[in-house]
Formats: sequence, structure tokens, C-alpha cells
Amino acid sequence: MLTNAEIKRLKSLREKKFRDEYGQFVVEGEKLVQEALESGFEVSAVYRECEIGTEAMSRISSLSSPSPVLALVNKPAPRKLEIERGLYLGLDSIRDPGNMGTILRLADWFGISTVFASIDSVEIYNPKVVQASMGSIFRVKTVYCDLAEICRRFRIADMPVYGTFLDGASLYGTSLCDEGLIVMGNEANGISSEVRSECSSRLFIPSFAKGKGPESLNVAAATAIILSEFRRRV
Amino acid sequence: MLTNAEIKRLKSLREKKFRDEYGQFVVEGEKLVQEALESGFEVSAVYRECEIGTEAMSRISSLSSPSPVLALVNKPAPRKLEIERGLYLGLDSIRDPGNMGTILRLADWFGISTVFASIDSVEIYNPKVVQASMGSIFRVKTVYCDLAEICRRFRIADMPVYGTFLDGASLYGTSLCDEGLIVMGNEANGISSEVRSECSSRLFIPSFAKGKGPESLNVAAATAIILSEFRRRV
Repeated sequence: MLTNAEIKRLKSLREKKFRDEYGQFVVEGEKLVQEALESGFEVSAVYRECEIGTEAMSRISSLSSPSPVLALVNKPAPRKLEIERGLYLGLDSIRDPGNMGTILRLADWFGISTVFASIDSVEIYNPKVVQASMGSIFRVKTVYCDLAEICRRFRIADMPVYGTFLDGASLYGTSLCDEGLIVMGNEANGISSEVRSECSSRLFIPSFAKGKGPESLNVAAATAIILSEFRRRV
Repeated sequence: MLTNAEIKRLKSLREKKFRDEYGQFVVEGEKLVQEALESGFEVSAVYRECEIGTEAMSRISSLSSPSPVLALVNKPAPRKLEIERGLYLGLDSIRDPGNMGTILRLADWFGISTVFASIDSVEIYNPKVVQASMGSIFRVKTVYCDLAEICRRFRIADMPVYGTFLDGASLYGTSLCDEGLIVMGNEANGISSEVRSECSSRLFIPSFAKGKGPESLNVAAATAIILSEFRRRV
């Protein structure tokens, strides 16, 4: 049985303030709990509906249909900043948890070991990011950082920094390198001016709309296209 | 001023049952309302916060931060089924409104004029689809239909039907045609067995994960990669 105080504490982890305070986050569902247990993350407790009861589970769950199992996981220590030669993803102020989760799943699929996210990006332990990532938060290393500074480090190491811009060159016609940093920008405002000036190459996904089409693509969809194109070619 | 009955009726349009009954749906935000007014759709009324008041607007809005303007739009008559030679998208039971909206935006970007959606796919006039589509619901024609029957029609017209499967051939190594139907499957279960047997070509997006990666990609992300690859090449 869970006490009211325990239920309250588990529920509080939906907010970043409390995830920071307790150093923990929650994952839900058989598949994700299994991924957590198999990952290098420390699982502090596992709660099953058959043990704690349906009412308690529906109170602690952040899903509209509570799953039968939920795990309390310790946040790992902040990841160390290491840049070896290879292909990386940079996220400049990604705010939507669904986009963040989908992007981490894409990074995982396309073999990107580390994602650099600006400090104002949504936290990867947000319950909606955890769910949308389908377990990729356990496999892809995410480093919150000063993204402009990271861009400078790539350039000092003589690796290109690719940015995506509405006025960039066609992705399909640009030569791509198998190492460097690919930066994706905020949902509404794109890449910030500080990071923009650190980009060595500006890419654009051409539109094939006949007549007036949309002004832009969703950032996770754009990330999908760009990572596919890099990996296909190099 | 809006009466309570009017507010209630506008709010009811969040549910498909009432959108069907009244033949109307709601769009919110300056940009989307502008798109509605410029489209061929009939706009029945426009409500501005400065006219109806903040309280009324926050009651009729389905967004967490109500936008300053909201339009009531008449649903067009069901779209006629016309298949000319060209590239089309088929959606087999896409359930998530965010995915549906993102997919319509992608279709619009990549010049796909018509999307065929199985009857059990989420309705495009669902408020979350409308918002995620960023106006593409006004430009891309969506036909709800028996998808297996549509696949048969493409094959009778001697056009390929591409399906996406976890056991398909690499997208990058398969020859693609500039006409035909590309079918994307349900978020959890993929393409149904009835539609599967109508596919003339099975595609798969190769993973580049080192070690264990995710089992699959999000369906909107997969659609992005596949449409990009078709348009890039043909």
C-alpha cells in the first residue's frame, strides 16, 4: 500500500522543480519499465497496479489510461561533455515534449550517440518526453549546455556545424560530412542568432508544393529527413 | 455577446459526434483563421476576443492559452474519389491527432494533392489535427475510404502500392516510381493484414543504431523520410 504522502511525492515528479529536488523521474508501461531495468539507470522502485491497487495507480499515473506498471528512476549525474569525431545533433530551444521525444527516438535510430540541447530546451525526464522517446532517453546521451559554445568547439576541432534555415542551400545538393554537428531550431523561431553565426553550413529541405504550401515543417519531421539524408549518403 | 447556448454549441465541436451533426469545425489563431478565409472553405463566423470578451473566448477555446481569434468553418462535402496518375499517400488507421496533422503538413510540403485515410483514422477536423496541420487541412484533399479497395484501384491502374514494413527492403536501395500510393500504418500495429496483401512493394527505413536501438520510428517521422526520398529521387 502507498501512503498519501508517497502518492503525492510520485505525482509531484510531473514537475521539473520536483524532479530536480528529488533527482528522480517516472516511467510508465511494461515496455518502458523493462527498458529502464535493462539500462544503466538506477531504478529506485517499481509499482504494479496489482500490488498498489487501481485507485493509487490512477492517481500517480500521468497517462489518461494508467498503465499496469510504473517505475521510479534516479536521474543520472549530468553527462560529461566529450566530443570525439562523429556525427552529433544539437537542439536549440526545443520546447514541445512530443517533438523532443520523437527527436531522441530518431537520434537513437540513426546512431547518434549524443544530443546537445540548449539549457532552455524541454527536460528529457518530462513524462511526455519519456513516453514519446519510447525508451531512447535510456540509450541516447543528452547534454544540456551552452549550444553556441559547443558549436565553437566543433569548429575548433575542424568539424562542420550544419544549421537548418529557411534560406539555406538544398539538403539534396549539398555535400555532407560524416562528422560534425547538425543543429535544429526552436518550433516557432528557428535557430537563435547566437547559434546561427556559428553555423558553417546552412541547409534547407526543398518544398515540392504546387502553389502555396506550408511555411515550414515540424522540427521532428525535419530532423527525420536530415538524419536520413546524412546516414544514407555518408 | 455570445449566449450560453452558443458557447455550448461551439464547445461541443471538439467532439466528432457534434462536428458530424452540425457539419462544422473550429480553427483557432490568427494564422489558421487567415488560412481558412483564403481557402475554398466556407467560414460561417469569426469570433475575436476583443469583441466577445476574454471569458467567452477562454470557454470556447480548446487551447490552454486561448488565441485572440477563432473561426467556425463549414465542413466541405465528402471529397470525390478521383485517382489520376501521380503520387499519393494512404493512411491505415492513424489514430494520434498530432501525427495526422504533421503528416498532412508533410503531404502539403511534398506536393501530395490527396491523402486516402482508412475510415478508422482520426478525423481531420479534430481540433488537435487542425492545429498540428498548420493550415494544410485546407490545401491537402483527404478522402476517408476503404483503403484496401483503393490499393486495388491503384494496382488495376497499373500503379505501385508501397507499404512500410519492419521486414521490407531498404528504402535507399529500392527503385521508386513517381506515381503510386505510399501506405503508412497504425502507430502500434502497422499496416493491417487486408491492406498488406495489396502492397506491391515493401519498404523499410534502415536503422543505423549501434547495438540495441528503438524497435520502430514514429509514423510521422517515417512519413517524412519516405516522402523526402521519393521526391528527391524522382
